[in-house]
Amino acid sequence: MSETFVIIGGDAAGMSAASKAKRDDPDLEVVVFEKGEWVSYGACGLPYYIKGEIQSLAELVSVTPDEFREKRDIDLRTGHEVTAIDPDAKSVTAVHEGGTLEQGYDHLLIATGAEAVVPPVDGVDLEGVYTLGSMSDGKELREYVARARSNESFQQPDRGPACQYLETCSGPVGVVGGGYIGIEMAEALAANDFEVHLFQRGERLLKGFSEETSAAVAEHLREEDVAVYLESDVEDLAGNERVEAVVTDEDRVPVEMVLLGTGVRPRTDLAADAGIECGETGAIATDNYCETNSSDIYAAGDCAEATHTVTGESAYVPLALTANRHGRAVGQTVAGRPTAGGDIAGTAAVKAFDLEAARTGVLDHERARDAGFDPVTRTIDANSRAGYYPEDGTVTVTLTADRDSGRLLGASLVSEYGEGAVHRSHALVSALEEGASVFNLENYDLAYAPPFNTTWDPVLVAAKVLAGELH
Amino acid sequence: MSETFVIIGGDAAGMSAASKAKRDDPDLEVVVFEKGEWVSYGACGLPYYIKGEIQSLAELVSVTPDEFREKRDIDLRTGHEVTAIDPDAKSVTAVHEGGTLEQGYDHLLIATGAEAVVPPVDGVDLEGVYTLGSMSDGKELREYVARARSNESFQQPDRGPACQYLETCSGPVGVVGGGYIGIEMAEALAANDFEVHLFQRGERLLKGFSEETSAAVAEHLREEDVAVYLESDVEDLAGNERVEAVVTDEDRVPVEMVLLGTGVRPRTDLAADAGIECGETGAIATDNYCETNSSDIYAAGDCAEATHTVTGESAYVPLALTANRHGRAVGQTVAGRPTAGGDIAGTAAVKAFDLEAARTGVLDHERARDAGFDPVTRTIDANSRAGYYPEDGTVTVTLTADRDSGRLLGASLVSEYGEGAVHRSHALVSALEEGASVFNLENYDLAYAPPFNTTWDPVLVAAKVLAGELH
Repeated sequence: MSETFVIIGGDAAGMSAASKAKRDDPDLEVVVFEKGEWVSYGACGLPYYIKGEIQSLAELVSVTPDEFREKRDIDLRTGHEVTAIDPDAKSVTAVHEGGTLEQGYDHLLIATGAEAVVPPVDGVDLEGVYTLGSMSDGKELREYVARARSNESFQQPDRGPACQYLETCSGPVGVVGGGYIGIEMAEALAANDFEVHLFQRGERLLKGFSEETSAAVAEHLREEDVAVYLESDVEDLAGNERVEAVVTDEDRVPVEMVLLGTGVRPRTDLAADAGIECGETGAIATDNYCETNSSDIYAAGDCAEATHTVTGESAYVPLALTANRHGRAVGQTVAGRPTAGGDIAGTAAVKAFDLEAARTGVLDHERARDAGFDPVTRTIDANSRAGYYPEDGTVTVTLTADRDSGRLLGASLVSEYGEGAVHRSHALVSALEEGASVFNLENYDLAYAPPFNTTWDPVLVAAKVLAGELH
Repeated sequence: MSETFVIIGGDAAGMSAASKAKRDDPDLEVVVFEKGEWVSYGACGLPYYIKGEIQSLAELVSVTPDEFREKRDIDLRTGHEVTAIDPDAKSVTAVHEGGTLEQGYDHLLIATGAEAVVPPVDGVDLEGVYTLGSMSDGKELREYVARARSNESFQQPDRGPACQYLETCSGPVGVVGGGYIGIEMAEALAANDFEVHLFQRGERLLKGFSEETSAAVAEHLREEDVAVYLESDVEDLAGNERVEAVVTDEDRVPVEMVLLGTGVRPRTDLAADAGIECGETGAIATDNYCETNSSDIYAAGDCAEATHTVTGESAYVPLALTANRHGRAVGQTVAGRPTAGGDIAGTAAVKAFDLEAARTGVLDHERARDAGFDPVTRTIDANSRAGYYPEDGTVTVTLTADRDSGRLLGASLVSEYGEGAVHRSHALVSALEEGASVFNLENYDLAYAPPFNTTWDPVLVAAKVLAGELH
């Protein structure tokens, strides 16, 4: 008799697992419960949909529900919310429009994802306050932008090059949070000619990146007419029915809309109710094979922890690649070939108007010391192409390494968009994943030609400077 | 008494060594003999100078002779040709306009570079036949382009988007050789609206790259109206005083000019005359510290061999980064801190009109087998950015790995210019340099965001596909 693989959640981790398991073992019965209607969607694309560069939500979907059902033979049940897991009986309970059902499993994957964190202040329930965690959030935001732009009061002088879509426009709007979502949404809103006010609690944007990267991004946002408020504690969203102002410890900024980009937290209630352990990060704890403390129950994606390749400790870094990779590994394991999900390096990339930035590993010295390293950090600025080449820009590279071993611990890069900070970060991730030292790295035989870099690519310059400090 | 470090040749390797040695040990007397007038120039930029994107040769010079003399305190003697080395007496003989001199040394670096290979056919001495090995070659070619363009016979219809500089133009011109120089010069000449005929002896362009890369570049050159002749043996350059035609085994193609891009060979006569050993490649043999068989005599740059990181064997890959890196290492060694030059990976990059391509390591199966590997190769095409993102292109990635160990042996990438083939190759060089396997590589936590790649970067897709073949 064939086995049954049940998956809770139909986004990246869930559908990667479903597809891989079914492909590797066509006899397996694969059942996916998704409480919404959308599956396998690229939530990372939502800011570009809201910006107006992508015309329909459907474009963000890589595989449709019908394709999963018909071409991949996966029993995908949208509109089904799993309300309980019974590890002893090896079954789950799902609620749907027509009632309730029980589904037995041989293997279970929890891929319930993450949800937007709403800060504990008054006014977050006012009309005009949004988060960006789901396709429906994206739809609402795009509709808001369209409504605002069709409004006759939306009349202001052209605000410069960011104004690609309209000749007259309005605002002001508030973005709370200076991480990826906050910055991408600032770009999306400014491109639609809103006057954007961005509030960040900490002293810099993109706190996981280097200080130099954060500073470059903040400066650039200001050049693009975004009002950036740092060390700004949002105390209250004011208004009656609709939001009217962001109130911080220092300012009261009138706004017509607020986007909360204040992070996400793993959805773990279902797992916790079934006695499945969460780690210190608050996400579901797993072993190398993404298996939880309850046998035959796996967790992957934005609801689960992963092992950090530098510290060796559990970390919570909910991003798309890990969800895909770990989901796929679980699918392969369930189909009969045990496959480790692999570590994470905490790598991330962001486009911020006309800049691009990436980071990986551990840059924070306290965290590096806790993991037993003696961190040293250096930052360099270098030409992105041969100085004489007509196109040219600057790449700023920050590297952190362990003093004695020279082992690369972390990196952060920023450049003009198109000048290669993000693709160059790939080289540093590779080095990091292999436990390479900057003494090796400075001698890498990287590709060189004048249209692409200087003879010593900025990555090599950074390694050389840092290695010189360690000797 | 201070020691003397003598360097023969004032380009990348020589001046890197001079600068580093003097910086690390200011007491060292550093003497550089350069037979020409130019030092420390970016010969890699010459095609872009000829194309017209760079306005003066001086822009290609990173540090001028006077700066070396005055700011870096280096005894740089341009117009001095070294004619003999006496390893027993530890001295060299140099000829200059005013006569001949002897210079003693404690340490000697031979950095005599490479010279263009002229194929053994009739007509290579005709007027209108050029090579591109030196600054003066570049100057002559630019002058040729300017003369041709000011000629009244230079009248033809616009040849399309490549025609950036003139509305009317002429040709035809021949380029012999389908390597970097041939392709970059085809671009430079086509941009100036010459009708370009490119002759390649072998069955594909860029023979060190993958077949897929070669095919993509050939197809693109043809789209750009370059006539590409493959498996075309040039037998003769015909003409009386001036070249009039390229004669191959199959064609007689009328041309007004010919550029020979048929490779380079190391300048080793001086070394050989002094009893310094050359390796099987024909270049000067060195150890890990770039030292030759003659003690205190080093060789670096385009005249010397280096160790290939994949095969462990000596190889001759005359490129700018190695010259800089090995020169710098010799400078450091001479200044008192013995420093290995480091291996090479045979990495190279080229822009070909609106394409970019890079390669590294060993792709050739016979060569891989000779080095003890069991090579397997796969090629994938993948979106360069999220499919829904407005800018988009394709990256083609070829990877070769050892069947049993999965060790990455080589890579070749090609994409539209700006879509990241070259910067992505950095990740593969890093993996190669660290001896990484594709089983590790497919799990790298590379940066992802929709403006830069798909969730699985093309590099990961390629590793995943190849790893799947090996399992």
